[in-house]
Amino acid sequence: MKIAILPGDGIGPEIIAQAVKVLNVLGESFELETAAVGGAGYAAHGHPLPEGTLALAKAADAVLFGAVGDYQYDTLERALRPEQAILGLRKQLGLFANLRPAILYPELANASTLKPEVVSGLDILIIRELTGDIYFGQPRGVRECPDGAFKGQREGFDTMRYAEGEIRRIAHVAFQAAQKRDKRLTSVDKANVLETFQFWRDIVTDVHKEYPDVALEHMYVDNAAMQLVRAPKKFDVLVTGNMFGDILSDQASMLTGSIGMLPSASLDANNKGLYEPSHGSAPDIAGKGIANPLATILSAAMMLRYSLNRAEQADRIENAVKAVLAQGLRTGDIYEAGTTKVGTEQMGDAVVKAL
Amino acid sequence: MKIAILPGDGIGPEIIAQAVKVLNVLGESFELETAAVGGAGYAAHGHPLPEGTLALAKAADAVLFGAVGDYQYDTLERALRPEQAILGLRKQLGLFANLRPAILYPELANASTLKPEVVSGLDILIIRELTGDIYFGQPRGVRECPDGAFKGQREGFDTMRYAEGEIRRIAHVAFQAAQKRDKRLTSVDKANVLETFQFWRDIVTDVHKEYPDVALEHMYVDNAAMQLVRAPKKFDVLVTGNMFGDILSDQASMLTGSIGMLPSASLDANNKGLYEPSHGSAPDIAGKGIANPLATILSAAMMLRYSLNRAEQADRIENAVKAVLAQGLRTGDIYEAGTTKVGTEQMGDAVVKAL
Ligand SMILES: CC(C)[C@H](C(=O)O)[C@@H](O)C(=O)O
Ligand SMILES: CC(C)[C@H](C(=O)O)[C@@H](O)C(=O)O
Repeated sequence: MKIAILPGDGIGPEIIAQAVKVLNVLGESFELETAAVGGAGYAAHGHPLPEGTLALAKAADAVLFGAVGDYQYDTLERALRPEQAILGLRKQLGLFANLRPAILYPELANASTLKPEVVSGLDILIIRELTGDIYFGQPRGVRECPDGAFKGQREGFDTMRYAEGEIRRIAHVAFQAAQKRDKRLTSVDKANVLETFQFWRDIVTDVHKEYPDVALEHMYVDNAAMQLVRAPKKFDVLVTGNMFGDILSDQASMLTGSIGMLPSASLDANNKGLYEPSHGSAPDIAGKGIANPLATILSAAMMLRYSLNRAEQADRIENAVKAVLAQGLRTGDIYEAGTTKVGTEQMGDAVVKAL
Repeated sequence: MKIAILPGDGIGPEIIAQAVKVLNVLGESFELETAAVGGAGYAAHGHPLPEGTLALAKAADAVLFGAVGDYQYDTLERALRPEQAILGLRKQLGLFANLRPAILYPELANASTLKPEVVSGLDILIIRELTGDIYFGQPRGVRECPDGAFKGQREGFDTMRYAEGEIRRIAHVAFQAAQKRDKRLTSVDKANVLETFQFWRDIVTDVHKEYPDVALEHMYVDNAAMQLVRAPKKFDVLVTGNMFGDILSDQASMLTGSIGMLPSASLDANNKGLYEPSHGSAPDIAGKGIANPLATILSAAMMLRYSLNRAEQADRIENAVKAVLAQGLRTGDIYEAGTTKVGTEQMGDAVVKAL
């Protein structure tokens, strides 16, 4: 089994180092190969997703990704900016299913800005389609406005679109995920305004016929954003498109107050995947040794479960993370009085020890 | 001065009746004329926005709108569904600037699902562009997928677009609103992915040159959804497009826990406007006399301020609402132990009395 390790920028290298340490003590014979991506890719090879990095990611059985983005790359033209690496990897590897759990660990209930009774025990799974929608639709650009009151002016434009097969495959992923949980699926759309999402609703309703054991509800995206604030625990699994999923999955992860704990998986049709923490590259704290490596370590656990067929090893890691939380160890982002503040390395070492 | 009164469906007529009562005791000689809209428009004239209703709205100096939507209209084809009335009014009247305050009244601090220290004193203003973006962009529909892996399948599609002039005018509204408040504006976009919103960012940056006294920051929409959960009080004024504004303004209003208190204004280029509560038609409680009329009464106050040039009357109404809250009167949606539960009419009467 070959794993591509793409640390990226900012805190990426530090947190990835801890996940690698954890992988190395499992007693499995994984082959780990590292390559530059994001700003680091640009610095080394002139492109955020260098050819060699893409080739490695394609050849590997799974990709463990840190984070990308740093101040010095902000002024590059868009095609060369770090985040293009992540868009390119998703598209080139066909990673259409993004799984974003939002889980509130009992020990961290105070970290949330929401009242404990509203979020304690929160455990929802957001499934975001990741290779379609307005992220990749053509045509797009800046053109002369063709008609209407602003005719002749410049206008920016993009194309939102979803083909039937794209909706079907993400719907299947979502219904199957719901079957393994509380068997409730909320499909989030904007069918009252968008043709794309009326079509989405029709197809999801059709796929539902194959999963009679799952309760399906449809919800408008504006209402979903409200319900995530009002009563987030009412949800089990949510499925939505790329754009709405970008917004709602970040909103949901912030409900926990501990985004430093949340992993993510982006899967292709054969369960090959890219795994990364839900948080970003946090350049302001990079190199200080204080970043929380647990989201990355938990991403490695998801990788073992979904792509490498090592569910027991995934369980071991997840239990080790729970154990270090129970021991009271906390990085700065989740620290509160009465617990023990540790750095990135110490936290990684503690997980290794708990294994 | 002529005011079009459009009660609509569900609780619409009950809450509008209270606002009309309030308008009638101000001692102004407004001419109020009522017409059917939404499901009621469809029931009476076969269309959610009947010709006579549109003509009245066009002829009036301002429109006071209740809410639209009820179960029996859910199965109508999209073009006849109640919400088409609101989309039609916005477009036909050129109501491009939607002002959505999210204010947490001190007396209602407990109503929020967020911790008091995170939301107490919350006072943010979301300005949503309302006649452009993917809501109205052409082409849109269901077609045969023209290329790519899903070629030949059906696909739903829509067009996102913003012309330069559309962005400029909403940016001016936003900068001017910020000038009257804490002089901080957050422009929310997705410039890292969408051409439309890279263009948006460029134009907003350009308009900023005319408002050097306002501090402008740009924020990605996913980050804005997170910051609204993490630290909503950090915002002063937010401005964004139609689609992102739909999601974020609803998310922000739910932060207060008292969406029954939140008015909204939708303005054209000459400050003519449509005023409506931020909440919906709540058909489940329609006719029970328990709906909260305060958002509608406060919408009437916004109407007096923005469209009818009666700022003192607006102040009077807003102070009367504060007075009834201070008296401990509460409708069911904002009731808590130790306060006095009242119905829709009693609440309207109490505001009239406080005037
Ligand atoms: C960096 C950006 C292009 C990306 C996205 O919008 O998908 C990010 O926000 C994410 O969610 O992974
Ligand atoms: C009813 C719907 C078309 C409308 C919108 O999306 O604009 C509503 O959600 C709103 O925000 O007023």
